[in-house]
Amino acid sequence: MNINIEIIGLIAAIFTTSSFFPQVVKIWKTKQTKDISTTMYIAMMIGTCFWLSYGILINSFSIIAANIVSSILILFVLFFKFLYKNSNN
Amino acid sequence: MNINIEIIGLIAAIFTTSSFFPQVVKIWKTKQTKDISTTMYIAMMIGTCFWLSYGILINSFSIIAANIVSSILILFVLFFKFLYKNSNN
Repeated sequence: MNINIEIIGLIAAIFTTSSFFPQVVKIWKTKQTKDISTTMYIAMMIGTCFWLSYGILINSFSIIAANIVSSILILFVLFFKFLYKNSNN
Repeated sequence: MNINIEIIGLIAAIFTTSSFFPQVVKIWKTKQTKDISTTMYIAMMIGTCFWLSYGILINSFSIIAANIVSSILILFVLFFKFLYKNSNN
């Protein structure tokens, strides 16, 4: 494991993982989820599980860390989407 | 490059990348982007560029392919968000 490369991976992980926070906060504040696609988040959840397996297999700390945190945040968005059921898909 | 591992990476890539399609289609149909967080997509765009660099450095075809396609779709969402400016963040 090259530390310099892993630092780039971790910066990537911080951005893509933290990118879910504003959406979670936005839903939390507005209680509105109408324009948010459930299909998107379900596909992303499945993909995240595969990325986690891939990260374990290639022994990439960045990929493992990113996908554990992302999957938790995606579950939050999906939870809110079902909680505030003012949606259309 | 282990082909079996790369297949898992490609399945992951297909899910996380295609997960953006429903959101693009949803915005395209409804012309509504109010509940979508711009901050989320900007952070994701930056993260995607770092993942692309990481993928090139560790020589992972799955990561490279996933992040090229994802960045194009993220740009679409951001383009629509600015086109239909009925937003609040």
